[in-house]
Amino acid sequence: MTHADKVRARLQAIAAASATTTGVTRLPWTAEHRAALGQITDWMQDAGLDVSLDAAGTLVGASPNPDGKPWLLIGSHQDSVPSGGRFDGIMGIAVGCLVAEALRDRIAAFPFALRVLAFADEEGVRFPTALVGPRALAGTLDPGALGMTDAGGVTMRDAMAAFGVDVDRTLGIALDPAGVVGYLEAHIEQGPVLETQDLPVAAVSAICGISRFDVTVRGATGHAGTVPMAGRQDALVAAGRAIALVSDAASAAPVRATVGTISVGPGAVNAIPAEVRFTLEIRSETDAARAEFETQILRLMRDSIARDACDMSALRTYDQRATDCDPGLTAALEAAIRDCGIAPLTIPSGATHDASAMADLCPVSMLFVRCRGGVSHRPDEHASARDIAAAVGVLERMVTRLAGNA
Amino acid sequence: MTHADKVRARLQAIAAASATTTGVTRLPWTAEHRAALGQITDWMQDAGLDVSLDAAGTLVGASPNPDGKPWLLIGSHQDSVPSGGRFDGIMGIAVGCLVAEALRDRIAAFPFALRVLAFADEEGVRFPTALVGPRALAGTLDPGALGMTDAGGVTMRDAMAAFGVDVDRTLGIALDPAGVVGYLEAHIEQGPVLETQDLPVAAVSAICGISRFDVTVRGATGHAGTVPMAGRQDALVAAGRAIALVSDAASAAPVRATVGTISVGPGAVNAIPAEVRFTLEIRSETDAARAEFETQILRLMRDSIARDACDMSALRTYDQRATDCDPGLTAALEAAIRDCGIAPLTIPSGATHDASAMADLCPVSMLFVRCRGGVSHRPDEHASARDIAAAVGVLERMVTRLAGNA
Repeated sequence: MTHADKVRARLQAIAAASATTTGVTRLPWTAEHRAALGQITDWMQDAGLDVSLDAAGTLVGASPNPDGKPWLLIGSHQDSVPSGGRFDGIMGIAVGCLVAEALRDRIAAFPFALRVLAFADEEGVRFPTALVGPRALAGTLDPGALGMTDAGGVTMRDAMAAFGVDVDRTLGIALDPAGVVGYLEAHIEQGPVLETQDLPVAAVSAICGISRFDVTVRGATGHAGTVPMAGRQDALVAAGRAIALVSDAASAAPVRATVGTISVGPGAVNAIPAEVRFTLEIRSETDAARAEFETQILRLMRDSIARDACDMSALRTYDQRATDCDPGLTAALEAAIRDCGIAPLTIPSGATHDASAMADLCPVSMLFVRCRGGVSHRPDEHASARDIAAAVGVLERMVTRLAGNA
Repeated sequence: MTHADKVRARLQAIAAASATTTGVTRLPWTAEHRAALGQITDWMQDAGLDVSLDAAGTLVGASPNPDGKPWLLIGSHQDSVPSGGRFDGIMGIAVGCLVAEALRDRIAAFPFALRVLAFADEEGVRFPTALVGPRALAGTLDPGALGMTDAGGVTMRDAMAAFGVDVDRTLGIALDPAGVVGYLEAHIEQGPVLETQDLPVAAVSAICGISRFDVTVRGATGHAGTVPMAGRQDALVAAGRAIALVSDAASAAPVRATVGTISVGPGAVNAIPAEVRFTLEIRSETDAARAEFETQILRLMRDSIARDACDMSALRTYDQRATDCDPGLTAALEAAIRDCGIAPLTIPSGATHDASAMADLCPVSMLFVRCRGGVSHRPDEHASARDIAAAVGVLERMVTRLAGNA
């Protein structure tokens, strides 16, 4: 059975571990999670890995390591968003298991041992936090997270304990950085670049940092029929021009900037808008570029809105630093991509991943896999078995290279 | 007692006929309406008018007319919006009564008699229609209107009958145009032009026609972090530029155009907007200018939105013709304004008034009175007693001129 056949069958079978029949709904510490871990256990055992559940609920498959060599980690998350797809997260676990299986007979000779990690929760859907597994390994887990409750009032601590996790030890499983070579993760791109470039995979340069603002534009209302155009302080006209500016300025900068929500008051067909509120999100692979763009766009918006006789205020609501992928690991990944006859491409990740948290522990590297139409978080999310098999081949080659270089 | 003192006292007293203590709330066919008609009856009797309630619920004050001369009508509406002001509508009735009172000793020698009309409903708040009184006089009342229900399930027919209106005759009171000289109406401007021009009153050239559209902009959604700026089909960026165009184009045309509401889907901080819906309202004193602007702006918007890689559709939801004020009456009004030592100004009305419906019966003319900040439909709506007294003087003079010219 080829990698492609195997990954297609495995991802199809594990998609049945879902709380919904439309798309995949697999939240952490649920019956679906348990069903998924049963199948992942089989994948790990097929690769000759010893399987255990750690104290953060991460299923760990470890290659035999009698000499206490440092670990090379390959992981991703088992959970999905509600009615999500069959690939986001779980594909990276399937790829990790197949890489381990492909290396099964050679790994003992490598200067490191291999651990495949199936994290419980990356999406943050059930509890108002996420990345519990990688944060526990990196020693960055906020103790308060365990007390957070889901929509049904169940604490994360109770949910984990009922699942069989040793929650008294959750905060004590941080790994020693000296014992870890690095962390690798394969993930669907969740964007359109690879499809546009006609490439099956690409290396990731960095995971973007994120800024979010709530922006308020204030003008003055009035009757749409009785107030002449001259002298109006129309907050929506001012906001409209500012939103276009966001797009124009971001298109000329190393950032992605998006206004995703908007509301207007008073909000009547015959009332001049007095107040408009919208969100502004900025992402960049470098924090310097993000900070520079923030300063620039807030000034451009404020000036434009003032020319439309309105005022602007912007409140920062979120600020997440960028995470660089490790240059050494990424160079090995790019070389492995070339070894596999694929044109090398390295792009930033606009979305957050388990690697974002693992970067606090060790060097990280990510491989993106093309997904159809850039679609993710939907039932029609799709990555071809052929592209996923290419990812298995690339990571197998990368690990082999790392073994030779170490 | 001066006109100013009298109008101040009367408008203050009648404001108590309200269902709310914050602002004035006086809907048709209510206890507040009845209380108001009691006071208006006194105003009419002070002017020597014979008072009756017509079959559309309009309180009519008629000067003695033994010779069957044609009628000059002066009117406005008694109702308010919920928590509205003390001037919108009711001021025109107060002005009409004071004009009749000022002319009381001379009217018998005029070639017309005078009727002051206090219409029940212009705002259209209680029932999903409006202008019942003037439409009944013009013979344009839709028979179906009487069957419309308010929020409590009461039909207009039952509400009117309980009020004491002879509803069996409502559809039969249309006036003979040959028996009507014209219709005059004084109303607060509900806009800022007179305040800006430092004038107490102005003649009205026409009542604007109105077009309304529901506009939908369709693009494509995607993750705000993973989709590069190049190639996005962001419906909100496209809509924002189009909304700015509406303002820019309307500022260079004889129209007023407003986008008053907007909504976006999917509507998440990290999702590129796929669909934006907004309303577009266009008003102009000439239907030709309105039609020309419609064609122009829809083409400009569609082209701009296409350049932003999105599609646009626009559905017309409302189309109301403009109403010209009568040139002869307006000339007399402008002359009367000059007679009173006021610089003549003639401006369009952006809002609809009773005169819009009366124009189907006879020549109409309107006089705007300055209101503070252009504010209306709010408790802080205000017109000074001095400006209202100026309106009384202007209309008295205009009617005298009409009597001399006839």
